[in-house]
Amino acid sequence: MTKTTVLPIDVRFGHCDPAGIVFFPNLHRWMDASSLHFFMQCGVPPWHQLTPVNGIIGTPLLEHHTRFMKPMTYGQRIEVHTSIVEWRDKVFIHQHQIRRDGDLLCEGTETRAFCIRDPKDPTRIRAVPVPADIRALCE
Amino acid sequence: MTKTTVLPIDVRFGHCDPAGIVFFPNLHRWMDASSLHFFMQCGVPPWHQLTPVNGIIGTPLLEHHTRFMKPMTYGQRIEVHTSIVEWRDKVFIHQHQIRRDGDLLCEGTETRAFCIRDPKDPTRIRAVPVPADIRALCE
Amino acid sequence: MTKTTVLPIDVRFGHCDPAGIVFFPNLHRWMDASSLHFFMQCGVPPWHQLTPVNGIIGTPLLEHHTRFMKPMTYGQRIEVHTSIVEWRDKVFIHQHQIRRDGDLLCEGTETRAFCIRDPKDPTRIRAVPVPADIRALCE
Amino acid sequence: MTKTTVLPIDVRFGHCDPAGIVFFPNLHRWMDASSLHFFMQCGVPPWHQLTPVNGIIGTPLLEHHTRFMKPMTYGQRIEVHTSIVEWRDKVFIHQHQIRRDGDLLCEGTETRAFCIRDPKDPTRIRAVPVPADIRALCE
Repeated sequence: MTKTTVLPIDVRFGHCDPAGIVFFPNLHRWMDASSLHFFMQCGVPPWHQLTPVNGIIGTPLLEHHTRFMKPMTYGQRIEVHTSIVEWRDKVFIHQHQIRRDGDLLCEGTETRAFCIRDPKDPTRIRAVPVPADIRALCE
Repeated sequence: MTKTTVLPIDVRFGHCDPAGIVFFPNLHRWMDASSLHFFMQCGVPPWHQLTPVNGIIGTPLLEHHTRFMKPMTYGQRIEVHTSIVEWRDKVFIHQHQIRRDGDLLCEGTETRAFCIRDPKDPTRIRAVPVPADIRALCE
Repeated sequence: MTKTTVLPIDVRFGHCDPAGIVFFPNLHRWMDASSLHFFMQCGVPPWHQLTPVNGIIGTPLLEHHTRFMKPMTYGQRIEVHTSIVEWRDKVFIHQHQIRRDGDLLCEGTETRAFCIRDPKDPTRIRAVPVPADIRALCE
Repeated sequence: MTKTTVLPIDVRFGHCDPAGIVFFPNLHRWMDASSLHFFMQCGVPPWHQLTPVNGIIGTPLLEHHTRFMKPMTYGQRIEVHTSIVEWRDKVFIHQHQIRRDGDLLCEGTETRAFCIRDPKDPTRIRAVPVPADIRALCE
C-alpha cells in the first residue's frame, strides 16, 4: 500500500454529453491526471524533468478496469482518491476512487509500467523495472 | 453474437501525448464512437431521434475493461471492430478490437444499459430492459 | 465592464501534444469552463438548473478570436482571468486572459449569445435577448 | 493560394455537449487535424518523421479566429475544407471552412509557424522561416 492522494475536479459543461452526464472518457482523463498528481505529491518530478535524468517518459497503461456506479454532471465538485495497491517487478497497480461528498461514483484499477524510449529505435517505447527511488518516495 | 462493424480512425497529432503515442482516453472515445456507429450500421437511429419515440437517451456504461497491447501514433490508420457478444435482460456486452493492418492493438469489453430519463426526476437517468426491436436489428 | 473571475488550472500530461506543449483546443475548453465559472461566481445557477426556469440551455459561441503568446506544459499552474467587456442587445463579449505568475500566455475574445430551444422545433436552438437579471448579477 | 484539401468528419455523440450540439473545442481539434491532413495530402511527411530530418516538430498556432454560423450534432457528416491563403516569411495563414452538404457552418482562420526545439534549451520551441521545400509541395 502507498500514500493516498486526493485530486479535486470541478465538473464542467464541456465534460458532459447530450444526456447531460459526464462523458466517460473524461473520467479516464481525470484518473490519468490523478496518477501523475499522485507521483508529484509524493515528490517525483514531472516526466519531462525526469526524461533527461533516467529516460522515463511516462507510465503507459497496460490494462484498465473501471466500474461506473453513479453519473455526475456539471456544477458538481468531485474528488479522485488515488493510491498504488500493489508493486510488481515491472508494473504497478493504481487504484482510483471518484467520490462526491464521500459517495463512491466510479472506481478504476490500472496496470501501468514505467517506460523509456527504446535506445535502438526512439520511435518505440519499452517498459523498465520499477525504479527503486520512485517507489521509495511513494511508500 | 451479433453483426460486427468496422469503424476506421485516422490517428491525429492532437490525439497523442508528450510520449508521442495516443493518449488512452482517446481510445475510449473511439470505442464509444464505434458503439453508436454499430447501432447506426444495424439500422438503429441516433439517440436524439429515438428519444421522442421511446425515451432512450443513450447507452451509458456500467463497466469497462481495456487491455492495451501496442501503442499507436499519428499518421496511422486504425480500425475499431465492434460487436455485441452477449445480451442480458437489462444490459449488453460490447466487444471492441482496435486493429492496424490486422494486428490487435487494444481490446475493450463494455457493459452497457439502455437508459431513459427518470419520469419522476428528469435530472436522473435509469436503465430499461433491452428493447426487443433494437436487439432484433443488431442480430 | 463586469466583475473579473479567476479560474486556476493545473496543466496535465494529457493536455499536451507530442511537441510537449498544451494542445490548443484545451485552451478553448478552459476558456469555456471559465465562462461558466464566471457566471456561477456571479451567482447565476448552472444551465441545467436554469433550463426549467427560463429555457436557457447555455451561451453558444458566435465568434472566437485567440492570440497565443507563450506555450505551456504539464506540471504548471495557470489562471484564466475572465470578464465581460461589452453587453449588446443579443450578445455579450467575453475576455479571457490566461496567465502564469502574472505573465500573459494567451488571450481570447468571445462573442456569445444566451440561447433557448426553438419552441417550434426542439432540435434547433436560437438566441434570446440578454436576460436583465443575469446581466445585473454580473455587473 | 494553395491546394484545397477536404477532410470528412463523422460527428459523434461524445463530441456534443448537454445542449446536444458539437462542443466547439472539437471544431478546433478538427481544424487542427485538417491542417496536418493538408500537409500530408500535399506530400509532406508527418512531423515525427520530419523531426530527425530538419528539426520541425509541428506548426503551433500564433492566432486563431473562428466564426460559428450553424450548430452541428451527432449522426451528421461534415467536411473541413482547408487551404493556405497566404505565405509570409515566418508564418502562413490557414483557412478552414466546415461544411455540411455545401452549407458553410463554421470558418476558421489560423496564423501558424513552423517550429523547432531551441538548440540551446530543448524545453523551449522557436519559429523558423517557412521551409521552401514544404511550401513548394503545397502550391
